[in-house]
Amino acid sequence: MHAIIPAGGAGTRLWPLSRVNEPKFLCDLTGAGRTLIQQTVDRLASLADNITVVTGGTHAETVKAQVPDAKVIVEPSPRGTMGAIGLAAALVEKDNPDEIVGSFAADHLIGDTDSFRQAVSRAIEIAEQGLVVTIGISPESPSTAYGYIEMGEERGHDAFSVTSFVEKPDADTAQKYLATGRYLWNAGMFVAKAGVLMGALEKFKPMVAESVRQLAARWDDDHEEAVRELWEKMESCVIDTAIAEPLAQEGGVAVVPAEMGWSDIGDYASLADVMEDDARLQQVAPGGSRQKIVTVESPNSLVYSGDKPVVVVGIPGAVVLDMNDVLFVTTLDNAQKVKEAVKVINDEGLEFLA
Amino acid sequence: MHAIIPAGGAGTRLWPLSRVNEPKFLCDLTGAGRTLIQQTVDRLASLADNITVVTGGTHAETVKAQVPDAKVIVEPSPRGTMGAIGLAAALVEKDNPDEIVGSFAADHLIGDTDSFRQAVSRAIEIAEQGLVVTIGISPESPSTAYGYIEMGEERGHDAFSVTSFVEKPDADTAQKYLATGRYLWNAGMFVAKAGVLMGALEKFKPMVAESVRQLAARWDDDHEEAVRELWEKMESCVIDTAIAEPLAQEGGVAVVPAEMGWSDIGDYASLADVMEDDARLQQVAPGGSRQKIVTVESPNSLVYSGDKPVVVVGIPGAVVLDMNDVLFVTTLDNAQKVKEAVKVINDEGLEFLA
Repeated sequence: MHAIIPAGGAGTRLWPLSRVNEPKFLCDLTGAGRTLIQQTVDRLASLADNITVVTGGTHAETVKAQVPDAKVIVEPSPRGTMGAIGLAAALVEKDNPDEIVGSFAADHLIGDTDSFRQAVSRAIEIAEQGLVVTIGISPESPSTAYGYIEMGEERGHDAFSVTSFVEKPDADTAQKYLATGRYLWNAGMFVAKAGVLMGALEKFKPMVAESVRQLAARWDDDHEEAVRELWEKMESCVIDTAIAEPLAQEGGVAVVPAEMGWSDIGDYASLADVMEDDARLQQVAPGGSRQKIVTVESPNSLVYSGDKPVVVVGIPGAVVLDMNDVLFVTTLDNAQKVKEAVKVINDEGLEFLA
Repeated sequence: MHAIIPAGGAGTRLWPLSRVNEPKFLCDLTGAGRTLIQQTVDRLASLADNITVVTGGTHAETVKAQVPDAKVIVEPSPRGTMGAIGLAAALVEKDNPDEIVGSFAADHLIGDTDSFRQAVSRAIEIAEQGLVVTIGISPESPSTAYGYIEMGEERGHDAFSVTSFVEKPDADTAQKYLATGRYLWNAGMFVAKAGVLMGALEKFKPMVAESVRQLAARWDDDHEEAVRELWEKMESCVIDTAIAEPLAQEGGVAVVPAEMGWSDIGDYASLADVMEDDARLQQVAPGGSRQKIVTVESPNSLVYSGDKPVVVVGIPGAVVLDMNDVLFVTTLDNAQKVKEAVKVINDEGLEFLA
C-alpha cells in the first residue's frame, strides 16, 4: 500500500494548543512523546511501502523534520482532502494504477494499533477486488461530532456494502443510528487501487481528476508552472462527498467495521476522553516546565501548567492551559465554543496568538 | 477620638491575592491605588487625633511604611481583637480615661466616606454619655457572611439601643432578620470612652483587663519583659463576644445605623461586588504587567492578568488570577471553598505559596 496523509486544518477548537502556525497534527497533544502526524506515520510504517504527506507550504519543513521517512508534497493552497488525496493518488496511478492507496487523517488518535492494522489489511484485500473500501468505527456513543456510514449487506471478510455516507446528525438522529446497530463513525479512512480511486474521481469530479492527472504527468518536468496553471483553478472538495457518497449509491464502496480506540481529538472534551486522569493534569504543552497542579472539587479537568503551579477549585471539567504566550481558561462543556472564541481573539487584536 | 486599628488575619478566602506574609489589609485589592489599611487610615484622618495600629511582628515594618503617620503597636502573638484593642485602649486610658477611642477593622472597604464620618461623629456624641457605641450597616441582602446587631428602642440622635449581637445566621434566619427591619450588619466598629471600654472589659473579662492595664502601666519602662510575662498567658478573645454581647444585655450598648457602601471584602464574591465591571477585568495584583483580558460568555468575572494575555470562555463568575508565582482558577460560586483549598495547597507541599 501507498499511504497518503492529507495534513491540513488548523484545529481551531483546540486553540491555543493548536495554532494556525502550529496546527494540531504537528502537536503532541496527549503527551505521548510523538506528535499526531508522527504517530500516524508510525502506525502505518508496517502497512505501507511508501508514505506521502500532502501539506501546505507553511508546514512543509516542519513535516519533513518530524517524519523524515515520508515523501512530502506541498500543496500551494488548500483544495480540500480530495485535492490533496487526488494529487497523491494520480502520482501513484501514473506509475501503477493497480497499486493500492490508502488515505488517513494526520491528526487522529488510535489507541489499539493492532486492530487498526488488521482492519487496514482486510480493507486492502477487499480493495484488490476493485472497490473503494472505508474503515468504519463501531460507535461508542450517539456522537453528533462525527459523520456516519450506513452499512448495507454483509459481503464476506467481515465487510459490508455501504448504503450511504451521512453528515453529522442531530442528537435524536444520532440516538436512532446507534440503536439500529447499522451505523459506523466515518473516520475518513479510504483504501482503493489508485486507478479505481481516480476512476471514481473522473466519473464524479471530472475536472478535478483532469487537473490532478495533468499535474501528475508534468510533475517531474515543469511542476511549478503546472501547479500555477492547474491547482489554483481547481475546485476544492472533500473525498467523502466528492467520491464516497455518490460511489456508495452505485454499490462501489465497502466498509470494514472496527474497534480501535479511535478519536479525532476534535475538541477539548474529546481530548480529555482519550487522556488518562494523571495525564490530564500534566504539562505537555511545548516549551514549558512541569509545575505542580492542584485541583479541588474539579474532577475530569484538563490542566497544563507552565512556569508556575496551578490551583483549580470547584470547576468540574475545567480546561486551564498556561501556555508561554497566553493563558486560556474554559470548561469541557464549552468545547464547541472555542472556535468562536478564536474569532473574538482576532477581533480583540490578539491575532498574533491565533 | 483616638482610633485603634487591629490589623491581623490572613484573609485566607482571598488567597492568593492575600497571603500569610502579605495579608489582605496590606493589599490594594480593588486597584484603588491605596492598600486597605491605607484607605482605613485615610478615612479616619479627619476624625481622629491619633491613630494606633496593633499588628503582628511579621507585618510591623510594612505597616509602618504604608501608614507612617500612625503609631504601631506590635503584638507578640495574636490574642484576638479584644487583646489588641484592649492594649491600645489601656494605653489611652492611662493618660485620659475620658478620651474617646474608636476601633475599626484594617481590611474593610467603605464606598461613602462622608456617611462613614457622619456616623462616627454621631457615635462619638453618644459615647460621650458613657455608652459603648457601635455603627451598624443597614443590610442590603440577607447575607449569611456577617454577624447581625438587633436594634431595640430608639434613643434619639438617630441611634438605638442594642438588644443583642448575633452570630452569622443561616439563610432562613438571615431572611427573617432582613424582613423585620430591626437587624443591622455588624461591621466591628466600636466607639467609647477609653475608661468605659476598659470598665466593661474589667467587668466581663477581668483577667484580660488586668493584663492589658499592667502592660500599659509598664509600657514605657520594661515593655518587653512585661509582654513576656503577661501577653502570652492572656486569653484570646474578640471584642464582640467579650464585651459587646454581655454589655448589650445590660443596656450599655447603642448603635448608629448607617449606609456607607461598606464591605468586609471577605471573599471573591464580595470583592467582585465592590468592583466596577471594568476593574474586574484588570491587572491589579502587585508586580505584574497589565496584559489584555478577553472574556467570552463569562459575565461577572474577576480576572487579573500577569505577563501574558488571558482568555476565558463560557464560565460566568470566573475567578482567574495569574499571579507571579501561582495561577489560581475558581468561580465566585466557590468563594467559600478557597479557605479549604489553601489547606489542600499546604498538604500538597505548596506551603510556600500560602
